[in-house]
Amino acid sequence: MPPTDTILFALAIVALIAEGMTAALAAGRRKMDWFGVAMLGAITALGGGTTRDVLLGHYPLWWVKEPWLLALTGGAALLTIAVARVVHRLRLMFLLLDAIGLVVFTIIGCTIALAMNQSLPIVIVAGMVTGCVGGVLRDVLCNDVPLLFRSELYASVSVVTGAIYVTGRSLDLDRDWVTLGAVAVGLTFRLLAIRYRWEMPKFVYDKEMH
Amino acid sequence: MPPTDTILFALAIVALIAEGMTAALAAGRRKMDWFGVAMLGAITALGGGTTRDVLLGHYPLWWVKEPWLLALTGGAALLTIAVARVVHRLRLMFLLLDAIGLVVFTIIGCTIALAMNQSLPIVIVAGMVTGCVGGVLRDVLCNDVPLLFRSELYASVSVVTGAIYVTGRSLDLDRDWVTLGAVAVGLTFRLLAIRYRWEMPKFVYDKEMH
Amino acid sequence: MPPTDTILFALAIVALIAEGMTAALAAGRRKMDWFGVAMLGAITALGGGTTRDVLLGHYPLWWVKEPWLLALTGGAALLTIAVARVVHRLRLMFLLLDAIGLVVFTIIGCTIALAMNQSLPIVIVAGMVTGCVGGVLRDVLCNDVPLLFRSELYASVSVVTGAIYVTGRSLDLDRDWVTLGAVAVGLTFRLLAIRYRWEMPKFVYDKEMH
Repeated sequence: MPPTDTILFALAIVALIAEGMTAALAAGRRKMDWFGVAMLGAITALGGGTTRDVLLGHYPLWWVKEPWLLALTGGAALLTIAVARVVHRLRLMFLLLDAIGLVVFTIIGCTIALAMNQSLPIVIVAGMVTGCVGGVLRDVLCNDVPLLFRSELYASVSVVTGAIYVTGRSLDLDRDWVTLGAVAVGLTFRLLAIRYRWEMPKFVYDKEMH
Repeated sequence: MPPTDTILFALAIVALIAEGMTAALAAGRRKMDWFGVAMLGAITALGGGTTRDVLLGHYPLWWVKEPWLLALTGGAALLTIAVARVVHRLRLMFLLLDAIGLVVFTIIGCTIALAMNQSLPIVIVAGMVTGCVGGVLRDVLCNDVPLLFRSELYASVSVVTGAIYVTGRSLDLDRDWVTLGAVAVGLTFRLLAIRYRWEMPKFVYDKEMH
Repeated sequence: MPPTDTILFALAIVALIAEGMTAALAAGRRKMDWFGVAMLGAITALGGGTTRDVLLGHYPLWWVKEPWLLALTGGAALLTIAVARVVHRLRLMFLLLDAIGLVVFTIIGCTIALAMNQSLPIVIVAGMVTGCVGGVLRDVLCNDVPLLFRSELYASVSVVTGAIYVTGRSLDLDRDWVTLGAVAVGLTFRLLAIRYRWEMPKFVYDKEMH
């Protein structure tokens, strides 16, 4: 593997663990049992990439080839039960890890779609699906309206990250620098959005259609 | 393209726009942000055909081949934010467009399944999935029990439309007339169902199983 | 078909009917109309196997090859409307049929993944998805937090059943005896879990992350 791939892979593992752990907290709020916690952790962490691959017809899925990913993400969720009190105090670290996850998953999704020779808009969509859909599945299974559709800049960060990465790659720039640039901009954007509570304007409509 | 295909294609574009716009109103009721509105619009408009293709293993998906469909449907949803007040007054037009969408999506779904040489029941199911599943995804993402399972005749209209189309095609009748007949009967059926509030009987059960 | 296959097939049919009928009761609690009842029955009964096949890229789906399965499961759900009062009195029989369904679906899922030469962990996951996901879809469409993630031992029974089956098969033991053993242990485990209200410990967490 070239060095960027090694770093991306290491960051992806960190991000999978972080996603599994935040999913566990959502499961705890719904009083799920331990098995449910592990399942929600695995679905949240791996659901974005799974959805991308099903939509693109890209088989076999990553966790089918590498079943230890299920143990990693489910195990991270279970571990969270033991350390839940500390987790709360580590809130800032989790927001950072989640931001890393968003950016790294997005770039991995783009890489896979590029390798399939998809068109540029679809490459960006593949990145966004990889980065964002896991959280949507978590919210649907917890019976919430997905946070993604309502909250601070999240999908937008994914689109910007993907657009930078895709532009750099299609200009044939050095892959390592393109990855580094996309990660840096995406991460900065997301952290600024959290810090200053940047939000998209909301659409509020309260008339009934039927 | 033969004339029927051109007309079906034009009606499908109108229907995609209408589905994106009605999804935007649902998003507004949940106070989603602009990005959420666009995503819900695209998912609602394209989700039925996507589900059909995933279930039948029919790749690549339509919007993967034609990414401008994402811009069309997401853009229609965003436009709705600007014109929401007028939209409310245009309620009747929207019900008509939605009915056209249901019937046209159903026929397109049947056409694709027929081209895959699926059995007749599966052709009808493919039509129903194409016509109805987008709205189910919209309702699940808005945290509602899908309207499809509870409300006026909608899935039934899709099944009747599909059955007429499939019967005509398997009798080797002229394809243009079959399409026209299925559209006419389906649309009339749906509009009468809205006008006279035709409903299926409901099943009400209030004992706990566990 | 060897005798075990015939018995498994017969049990699967019984289980599909049972799943369609219990789904109908859930639909009745949400006041769905008759069409919604039939659809929820078919989705619940066939959704686990469908999800497994989509995740593994195993086409065509079972009900696409055998569309009468849609009529069987949807019909069983509709029949439930007529016999709902009796169903309530037959509560114990339903719990038994549901337990048979869980165990039989699990083994069928394992068999299919084994025939695809999947790794052992994925075979067990394929069994669990086949046995459990139908109920998750039912709960999501009824706008509930999936029971699977919260309630008595259910997914665990599926994992134990799958693990026994897979171990036996990979030791090259006689297939009929392996199937019988897995069914016996899984069924006993599930019925004891119901009888003695065995539960996983729950994870309760009530702090907000954001």
